[in-house]
Amino acid sequence: MSVFTPVAESQLAAWLKNYSVGSLGSLEPIASGIENTNYFVTTTQGRYVLTLYERLPAAELPFYLELMAHLARHGIPCPAPIADLGDRYLSSLNGKPATLVTRLAGVSLDKPAVADCAELGALLARMHLAGRSYGGYLENPRGPKWWRSAAAQVRPHLEPGRAAQLEAELAFQSQHRLAELPRGAVHADLFRDNALFDAGRISGVFDFYFAGIDCFAYDLAVCANDWCLVDAERDRRLDEPKTLALLGAYQAIRPLQVAERGAWPVLLRAAALRFWLSRLHDKHLPRPGMLVTVHDPEHFREILALRAAPGAPAPWAS
Amino acid sequence: MSVFTPVAESQLAAWLKNYSVGSLGSLEPIASGIENTNYFVTTTQGRYVLTLYERLPAAELPFYLELMAHLARHGIPCPAPIADLGDRYLSSLNGKPATLVTRLAGVSLDKPAVADCAELGALLARMHLAGRSYGGYLENPRGPKWWRSAAAQVRPHLEPGRAAQLEAELAFQSQHRLAELPRGAVHADLFRDNALFDAGRISGVFDFYFAGIDCFAYDLAVCANDWCLVDAERDRRLDEPKTLALLGAYQAIRPLQVAERGAWPVLLRAAALRFWLSRLHDKHLPRPGMLVTVHDPEHFREILALRAAPGAPAPWAS
Repeated sequence: MSVFTPVAESQLAAWLKNYSVGSLGSLEPIASGIENTNYFVTTTQGRYVLTLYERLPAAELPFYLELMAHLARHGIPCPAPIADLGDRYLSSLNGKPATLVTRLAGVSLDKPAVADCAELGALLARMHLAGRSYGGYLENPRGPKWWRSAAAQVRPHLEPGRAAQLEAELAFQSQHRLAELPRGAVHADLFRDNALFDAGRISGVFDFYFAGIDCFAYDLAVCANDWCLVDAERDRRLDEPKTLALLGAYQAIRPLQVAERGAWPVLLRAAALRFWLSRLHDKHLPRPGMLVTVHDPEHFREILALRAAPGAPAPWAS
Repeated sequence: MSVFTPVAESQLAAWLKNYSVGSLGSLEPIASGIENTNYFVTTTQGRYVLTLYERLPAAELPFYLELMAHLARHGIPCPAPIADLGDRYLSSLNGKPATLVTRLAGVSLDKPAVADCAELGALLARMHLAGRSYGGYLENPRGPKWWRSAAAQVRPHLEPGRAAQLEAELAFQSQHRLAELPRGAVHADLFRDNALFDAGRISGVFDFYFAGIDCFAYDLAVCANDWCLVDAERDRRLDEPKTLALLGAYQAIRPLQVAERGAWPVLLRAAALRFWLSRLHDKHLPRPGMLVTVHDPEHFREILALRAAPGAPAPWAS
């Protein structure tokens, strides 16, 4: 349960008077989310999600909100921030920065099929193309600089074999400069639980609070490592049909350049490293008052080991 | 049938490659509309309306499109223009300025009930409040200046009694300066066929191509003259319960000022005059190639006569 800041109905009803969305019908806390407090809000006008930001740096919030607004007005099915009567996306509620966004229909898929991976690939390509005209700038906050800082913090907690694996990967990544790959606004956290499907079609992507400017192909690697596994619990190799579907649908809209295809194995490892590190960090350096279940870091350590293994199966992007 | 410019599927499919809305599913001409060519467009992503502008001045289009975008991001259920990959709402198709907007759900009501008039009043008030932060400026293109010009054009076609009624009303209106009333972006053409309802709730308002900056209360008068009649065919007096519902729901969100309440009878007449004039103009000075059925000007001449009659029933806004 991740409601850090309670919001009363009377409080919200008063707050909504500064918006053009009608009057409050119902308010329902959302259990997921580790960075923010979220509520489903229903008004006489429609269905929304209210977010109170608990720890994201205030200076970064406009990047996320303007990105969502930009993508939404390009037709990408993502939460559209609602502007208040003062024409601002960001307001204040209960002493926290807060925003209201549209609520998307659909359900997340625990076990996406090949066709679902194709839907995701197409949407990701459309999102990358739409994002090219976005003017905001925020370096991916979980990029190489953060890896090194997080690694230094978690290293004392690791047993020697794990520490060696981490050092080896950081060294490997530092030898591969990816700065020349095509870059732009990426979601960078588009796991299965951040996408919604409705009647076989992708109906929404949300949770842009790890978005930033990074290589487009890195975004695809993050997706492959979560969506395209043979079996997320028992066999974390990439499933060939799912991976080909993801990449094929993506490339039908935005063909990968030679350099991106060449970097694909490195990007799969980078994407595994980033989530191994964040899970290690959440486990060994939990934040005060953190109430959520910590995801097992071993999941991504094993993915990293599989992607880095000599003779790992063809990455299908070359 | 109002498709002035045919669009082929192959042509549209190519045009859509400059958008992030997926690939073309179907294309269906829309029969209504007298200013533009409209199509329903379904893509792998969603449902849209394609509009090709046939005669609106190109310089005015950004005012309408930015207004719709502004209102949509404030939560007003109106068509949201989709930006293309160049981040523009306005593009070109088949040699015409063209735009793609979201398609709203719901159906228009031919005979709105009292509760529907209340829904409309509440939405209109929210729209007016949301529009206050809109920065665009376009004087209502069917305002007093246009009345005088249109009157001069249609006068030679009127029999003496009608011409006298027109002159009398223009003289009456010129004695009532309304410039000091609260002004802002108004729809100015929110007839029953420009609103959609779904499950008893207003689900959309569209056709903003007569919008402009004018008195908020004038917008309300345009609505009253179409939504709140006792019987649109047989008794064009204002129905008291419907009019009270419209005004009451509006004022619960945006209370009318004393000056607005005082001007209400004048505004009802101004709103009738504007549509009487435009219908006379369409009838007596049809545009070349105009294919649509001309609405009967007598409908609004009679409304004007009823609103202007000595001893007309209380206007319920004082």
